[in-house]
Amino acid sequence: MSEFRCDPISGRQVIIAPLRSGRPAAFAKAGGGDGRGSKPAYVENCPFCAGNEQMTPPELFALGRNGTAPDTAGWRVRVVPNKYPAVELRMVEQISENIPGYGAHEVLVEIPEHNRHPGSFPPRQMELVVETYYRRGRMLADYPDLRYLQIFRNYRREAGASIEHPHSQLLALPFVPVVVRRELERSQSAYLADGACPFCQLLEEERRLAQRIIVQSDTYSAFIPFAARSPFETWILPRRHAASFLETSASERADLAEILEELLRLMEHALGDPPYNYYLHSAPLRSAPLPYFHWHIELLPKVSIVAGFEMGSGVFINITKPEEAARFIQEKGRADYEQSWRKDLLYPCAAQSSTGREPG
Amino acid sequence: MSEFRCDPISGRQVIIAPLRSGRPAAFAKAGGGDGRGSKPAYVENCPFCAGNEQMTPPELFALGRNGTAPDTAGWRVRVVPNKYPAVELRMVEQISENIPGYGAHEVLVEIPEHNRHPGSFPPRQMELVVETYYRRGRMLADYPDLRYLQIFRNYRREAGASIEHPHSQLLALPFVPVVVRRELERSQSAYLADGACPFCQLLEEERRLAQRIIVQSDTYSAFIPFAARSPFETWILPRRHAASFLETSASERADLAEILEELLRLMEHALGDPPYNYYLHSAPLRSAPLPYFHWHIELLPKVSIVAGFEMGSGVFINITKPEEAARFIQEKGRADYEQSWRKDLLYPCAAQSSTGREPG
Repeated sequence: MSEFRCDPISGRQVIIAPLRSGRPAAFAKAGGGDGRGSKPAYVENCPFCAGNEQMTPPELFALGRNGTAPDTAGWRVRVVPNKYPAVELRMVEQISENIPGYGAHEVLVEIPEHNRHPGSFPPRQMELVVETYYRRGRMLADYPDLRYLQIFRNYRREAGASIEHPHSQLLALPFVPVVVRRELERSQSAYLADGACPFCQLLEEERRLAQRIIVQSDTYSAFIPFAARSPFETWILPRRHAASFLETSASERADLAEILEELLRLMEHALGDPPYNYYLHSAPLRSAPLPYFHWHIELLPKVSIVAGFEMGSGVFINITKPEEAARFIQEKGRADYEQSWRKDLLYPCAAQSSTGREPG
Repeated sequence: MSEFRCDPISGRQVIIAPLRSGRPAAFAKAGGGDGRGSKPAYVENCPFCAGNEQMTPPELFALGRNGTAPDTAGWRVRVVPNKYPAVELRMVEQISENIPGYGAHEVLVEIPEHNRHPGSFPPRQMELVVETYYRRGRMLADYPDLRYLQIFRNYRREAGASIEHPHSQLLALPFVPVVVRRELERSQSAYLADGACPFCQLLEEERRLAQRIIVQSDTYSAFIPFAARSPFETWILPRRHAASFLETSASERADLAEILEELLRLMEHALGDPPYNYYLHSAPLRSAPLPYFHWHIELLPKVSIVAGFEMGSGVFINITKPEEAARFIQEKGRADYEQSWRKDLLYPCAAQSSTGREPG
């Protein structure tokens, strides 16, 4: 029997309508398996491969260079302007929502090699990626006309990536986008009514229930939300209240890299390397520390299609129960990683397992 | 250079960022050509083909029977409950947004043959489809607990159709979905401020400008909206103000069938039979005639992917200028149909052509 659910943060309405074909195990090969290994580490005509730096606009930022010059090989993470930008930084007389598209649109090349994505990065590579999100974010926050920075990653063509080489994107705008503005407004209302950050409350409730949590560390919890739009939608929330990702400490960023990569690895193994999108929600650039908003990441493996009903109504139909989807991912994770070095990450449903750990 | 645009009806923010790859002609084969002709008229295991009526739940409604019994062949349009319903009509003690999924989810089988879609229907078939939208709508409006009826069509697997046989769907809910509620609220505000229906004003402006209109009849105008989300998003608006589709007259429904099929035919020819979604926006069931809302159809050929940026921000990036997309579709339409019997439909940019018609 189906069920109406409403997401307390966004107000999104979802119909959870479990189907036989929506049993989590039915998605075990949703992604069609892992084709990464069969791809080469260097592709001659790939603009993001090390050695092909002249194929991109001049670089804006890089990490990991050992004395090599900009726009040559030797970097570990590299940021360049998007060659086909949706918006551009340039001189304009007056900035408003209605003027020609002012903003910044950058590509973050995550690794020199063509065939290694998060989940199979070498140790600490993901830290460099997250650190670059932060460093570029700080730099873009210095432009007084930019109001919001959207950081996002599209993985595989089916999820909108037109270039195969591992990369994220940063898009900064002179206004706060509507989805974020609604989250801010709703969170503020909840805070005024209850005197507490609704994200902090949600986090506490999810940890207490431990039914939808997928993986946790000391600093983050990742869970499938109560009103997930699609079977494996997952949010990562920091435990410590902070409205902006740009308020994080270096160690919080290192921890984020760890849990984010762990989550992507779990999804990859459980769902057969599915296409996905993730994005960061954070307070507007240069806003005061807000007591009601809480930065976070939303990850959506692409295992379903948004069609006429969803487009027309804004209501999503999810054919998998979030609680069952979470159990499936946890069990897969436990099976695959019981022996792994990442014992510091807790799988809450694994409490009965031989590790004897408490639920996170 | 890109441009920020805001849709006056929905408030949606769009970045129009024209790309070389977004030139309208680049989409001429977006759909991959027309595979319909190569498919048979009857498919043994298709639950919607005439002769296979026992493969569906018992029928709710049919048009065109000449004395044959329900659940046998002989119909021209047939409505059955969705075998895998997202919501269900059943006895419940109390109806609210938070209770198990109450509602109706029906499939409208548009034609007995497997391989004929709107755009290549036999004469008057589309009239039966639109008439059935109306007739089932009237019947569902009699359930006092149903508040909104979403009528929609998904075409091809890429746009979410899991069954190939031509069909639409009707999904009735005990609440007004968020997208429609926002349109109602925004329209009401505009009406209170200006004393006029914002849809009527938009229609007048689009007809005056004649830059984005694709096709018109005496009763309807179809145009690409100023802030289209994707290259060929098109709206059909009735000229006569009416908040609900269920307020239409029989002749207005026949006219709708004509312009809707014409529009789908144009898209099919111009874009190589692309996947698409369309849906109807209408006032809530049983609402009084509202002076500020105006029912309409929104059609979205699927030629782009909604990815991380759009999901996270709610802002859409459209790589084709709506004015150029409209000109392309019109020109294709004029070229393909100059000789056709549908001379009563006006192609506004065809004013300079040999027909000597005025812009609609």
